[in-house]
Amino acid sequence: MFDEVEAARERLRLIANRTPVMTSRNLNAITGGQIFLKCENFQRIGAFKFRGAYNAISQLPLEEKRKGVITHSSGNHAQAVALAANLLDVNAVIVMPENSSHVKIAATRGYGAKIVFCGIKPTDRAEKTAELIKQHEYTLIHPYNDLNVIYGAGTAAYELIEEVGSLDMVLAPVGGGGLISGTSIAVKGLCSEAKVIGVEPKNADDAYRSFKTGKIVPSVNPNTIADGLRTSLGNITFKIIQENVADILTVTEKQILKAMKFLWERMKLVVEPSGAVPLAGLRFGDLKVKNKRVGMIISGGNIDLTAFFKLLRQQIQS
Amino acid sequence: MFDEVEAARERLRLIANRTPVMTSRNLNAITGGQIFLKCENFQRIGAFKFRGAYNAISQLPLEEKRKGVITHSSGNHAQAVALAANLLDVNAVIVMPENSSHVKIAATRGYGAKIVFCGIKPTDRAEKTAELIKQHEYTLIHPYNDLNVIYGAGTAAYELIEEVGSLDMVLAPVGGGGLISGTSIAVKGLCSEAKVIGVEPKNADDAYRSFKTGKIVPSVNPNTIADGLRTSLGNITFKIIQENVADILTVTEKQILKAMKFLWERMKLVVEPSGAVPLAGLRFGDLKVKNKRVGMIISGGNIDLTAFFKLLRQQIQS
Repeated sequence: MFDEVEAARERLRLIANRTPVMTSRNLNAITGGQIFLKCENFQRIGAFKFRGAYNAISQLPLEEKRKGVITHSSGNHAQAVALAANLLDVNAVIVMPENSSHVKIAATRGYGAKIVFCGIKPTDRAEKTAELIKQHEYTLIHPYNDLNVIYGAGTAAYELIEEVGSLDMVLAPVGGGGLISGTSIAVKGLCSEAKVIGVEPKNADDAYRSFKTGKIVPSVNPNTIADGLRTSLGNITFKIIQENVADILTVTEKQILKAMKFLWERMKLVVEPSGAVPLAGLRFGDLKVKNKRVGMIISGGNIDLTAFFKLLRQQIQS
Repeated sequence: MFDEVEAARERLRLIANRTPVMTSRNLNAITGGQIFLKCENFQRIGAFKFRGAYNAISQLPLEEKRKGVITHSSGNHAQAVALAANLLDVNAVIVMPENSSHVKIAATRGYGAKIVFCGIKPTDRAEKTAELIKQHEYTLIHPYNDLNVIYGAGTAAYELIEEVGSLDMVLAPVGGGGLISGTSIAVKGLCSEAKVIGVEPKNADDAYRSFKTGKIVPSVNPNTIADGLRTSLGNITFKIIQENVADILTVTEKQILKAMKFLWERMKLVVEPSGAVPLAGLRFGDLKVKNKRVGMIISGGNIDLTAFFKLLRQQIQS
């Protein structure tokens, strides 16, 4: 599987952003370790999701490319599929609930995808998607339970280790498990001794419970500000996690916001709540990182800033 | 003078952060140029000011170091002097108006400086500072009208050009003129053909008016959200600007906020209003940048995020 991450990296070399690795004297002082943040908030579409979507779509047979791809998402994966398909000259259809925010609809449409709306019941998206696949023979690009998506996601950790050298521990957030799975494959291939730790919101702790009990326990109506991590593990990601991941930690909503505030205030990084989850795990989890070299995947930076800029506009005098 | 910027760079090599240069496909597409952002929001204390303060204090004779340094500021320069003095084992006194925000007081004190409060009248700071200098023989570290501070500030542009190569144009914000002066010395020394452009808030346009009329015209009660740019030029910075700077543009408050929104939303950078001013000049000024290589100094990222995180805290459910 590691070979596939290497191959994905070649495919992405000139297409994805080689995102910077950031460090903080302050964070190193607080933790006693050397902490390296791989900042995928600087990735195209503002999140690591571009890596997986591009890697998956680029490898489709010509016939499938000709018919087009589909996914259902209202978040970063929608924009990732839209942009990747656009760059590869493939038609993309994104199924979104009819109550999705205008910002997200506009962004996804801006990358050239066709939006098809569905109802707002949890099952509506999958039904609408299945219906369209039957009708048009589109290929589904699953947001995480797809090996090529996983290999693509793993290229972030690959680049991190390539740049900073061997690590003792790598943390990544866990939603559907695509990022942590890909990360774990890259880490095991490059520095097999390193521990891979998943961090998950306590309010959406399906991966934690699945990992501890050995069988998939999906989250029911998870309520977390980390909107990218509300999904539950898939069978493929769960299997990889069981094999490669040392532990899964959970963090509270307050801890997520504290970590996010540190990233914004001290490190000047616009990071979405999901992206701050691994730092919350580092700061508030019971990890031994003193004198350790610790990598962390900051997954994305897409957050609605409307309210913040409204506050600022009230301060100006023209 | 260029030699002095090079010397400053040697002094800062292991002490200041070598801040990243960021680019944006989107910004290049909009402008038709190649735009390079030197991100001093990632500098120590969150702004370029650290460079000048450290360069100035490090060169003081031992006797002056022993007596300590002083400055009056409630902004980034206060923190810069506090941290630089601390690193050089020099005592620092910062004079601040008694109504300064707790956040700024705590940050400056956190770097180990002694805070002395003064009244809130515009003349109170200088009077209190003069009184303390007379009493204790402190050395004043002026925020901009000081050659060593200017040379230090110029090291950001030096690093930028060293990293990305020759540029056709370099933009920097103008407040007291330290950053634009230092930038212009570095640019003229490394690629003499490049135009150096200062950008200033229309609501604090003393440099624009001074530049156009040929004599210093200070701002009176400037009201701009770019709080780092409310100060007026000094005689030293004005002279360097007259010699080296091709033009000074002004931008409105709305344009500053639009540029800032682009930096946050699209580039995921926490930048303070002053730091967004050069981008506002690029986007809304009448510059010819098509097919040009344009550098820009993003001066800092210190902004109060309390209100924004308060909004986020209201969204979470523990």
